[in-house]
Amino acid sequence: MESFGVLMTQPMMPYLQEEISRRFKIFKLWEAPNQAKFLSENAASIQAIVGDSAVGAKAEFIDALPNLEIVATCSVGLDAIDLEMCKEKGIRVTNTPDVLTDCVADLTIGLIICTIRQLHMADRHVREGKWITFGNYKLTTRFSGKTVGIIGLGRIGLAIARRAEAFGCPITYYSRSEKPDFRNYKYYSNVTELATNSDILVVACPLTEETHHIISLQVIEALGPQGVLVNIGRGALVDEPEMVTALLDGRLGGAGIDVFEHEPEVPMELFGLDNVVLVPHVGSATWETRKEMADLVLGNLEAHVLKKPLLTAVV
Amino acid sequence: MESFGVLMTQPMMPYLQEEISRRFKIFKLWEAPNQAKFLSENAASIQAIVGDSAVGAKAEFIDALPNLEIVATCSVGLDAIDLEMCKEKGIRVTNTPDVLTDCVADLTIGLIICTIRQLHMADRHVREGKWITFGNYKLTTRFSGKTVGIIGLGRIGLAIARRAEAFGCPITYYSRSEKPDFRNYKYYSNVTELATNSDILVVACPLTEETHHIISLQVIEALGPQGVLVNIGRGALVDEPEMVTALLDGRLGGAGIDVFEHEPEVPMELFGLDNVVLVPHVGSATWETRKEMADLVLGNLEAHVLKKPLLTAVV
Repeated sequence: MESFGVLMTQPMMPYLQEEISRRFKIFKLWEAPNQAKFLSENAASIQAIVGDSAVGAKAEFIDALPNLEIVATCSVGLDAIDLEMCKEKGIRVTNTPDVLTDCVADLTIGLIICTIRQLHMADRHVREGKWITFGNYKLTTRFSGKTVGIIGLGRIGLAIARRAEAFGCPITYYSRSEKPDFRNYKYYSNVTELATNSDILVVACPLTEETHHIISLQVIEALGPQGVLVNIGRGALVDEPEMVTALLDGRLGGAGIDVFEHEPEVPMELFGLDNVVLVPHVGSATWETRKEMADLVLGNLEAHVLKKPLLTAVV
Repeated sequence: MESFGVLMTQPMMPYLQEEISRRFKIFKLWEAPNQAKFLSENAASIQAIVGDSAVGAKAEFIDALPNLEIVATCSVGLDAIDLEMCKEKGIRVTNTPDVLTDCVADLTIGLIICTIRQLHMADRHVREGKWITFGNYKLTTRFSGKTVGIIGLGRIGLAIARRAEAFGCPITYYSRSEKPDFRNYKYYSNVTELATNSDILVVACPLTEETHHIISLQVIEALGPQGVLVNIGRGALVDEPEMVTALLDGRLGGAGIDVFEHEPEVPMELFGLDNVVLVPHVGSATWETRKEMADLVLGNLEAHVLKKPLLTAVV
């Protein structure tokens, strides 16, 4: 097991890094001054890639590593991995589903309440001494009872729906097909129609070619000046320049955003707005969840080396 | 109805002020340079007081108004009213229950997630450009599955419990007596014991002589360095200096606070802490809820004038 070469694409939580070092032979891509040179020099020794949603297994990496056997991403999303190439070459792929569902769903509800009740700005109002000097913070909008539309009723979308139901929110959703198990949630086969019929629109689907910019100008206009957009999926699910313009013009009511199209770059035009909450891709960023994700990555790698069934195989 | 004199103690939402002016004879206490003089000059004409949780019907006001018939507070809490004096003098008292329950419960869940996931500080991290220059925000703590202890299982406490259940949180509570209807919530007859057995402690009871400083040093120590205190009741339910010291020393894990002992004054020592969320008494501060509260105040005043049953009588 100690000779099994694992390429880590970038620094992740110390626990994962330490455990990979302890159990396998680690190659730290981010420490290499010249990554192409580093890959070609160590190509023969690397059997696995561990990346995450930021830097995964791009075609260049896969191409450069002839002995690559498995990609074990520390994320649920697979958009940073060239899946087709993995399938062609017989490279196994695992991700970390389920263990992050609760934290992402918690964040979603937190973003909704924080955006709609402007808690982040109310906190600033207090810390800047404005409660005494200027008086009360402005009135905001009620969350309970608002219609929550969810794009993608997978594990995470469903966990969000379950939570929103407890706030008396009717649930609407879009997905590739209607889910017969959830008859109390209203299905729309069209995202614009979903946006028209939702107060809050949550983007919770995977990023694929089909879902790229699924939140188009048309969807943003359908959500409208009272509507709130929440993106906890991937940045490129939203046409970001259109969203920014709509927020600045008041054609979109507000937004709670965890993921950005060119993260860690965030459109600076948003920095002056009260009706947006901007967080740095923290959906799964709790100690508990990151530990469980790391353990899944390690478990998949060990299972692979021991020729046992993978814990969470995608390919 | 137009001759019925209503003393408003301080500015509230324009709608309430306008409707009182339109329907009754309004006396605006806060505009008077000398309040005692204002009260004595207009005493004969005032039959009602409309206050809120900040300035209600204190003994001086009641004493100064011999023709006072009703106190209609725009709040659910009655701690700003001298209830005993009202009872003795046969003065009716109404409040605004139910209509604010959802918004206060929403805020509570928002404060919990915002505090435990540090959304307000993560938002600052992005807006200050630190995601690019310093990298990811630090890992935080999971909310789902944490035990939520609730002090006061009334309308608001119960609405909080219902929401927290959807996050997979076991519910514990303290109240004057065990509530046989809620057997899946664990009852503690002692607040310190409740704090010992809760990860998050929510203060949701009315402020009375018995509940003053119910969150004592002992309770804070029992909640401990991993515990989170959330106060959406009244500031004086918490021994604020002890809470501040415990937060500064790390003997209390974090706090989400909507109400303060001497609000709008907030202990400045808290302003530098990441693990606290400080909002300016915004529990019911949405347009929808404040409108419904105002309509209840107006409905109670009209019912009283027309000698019909009061809508939400307390005394």
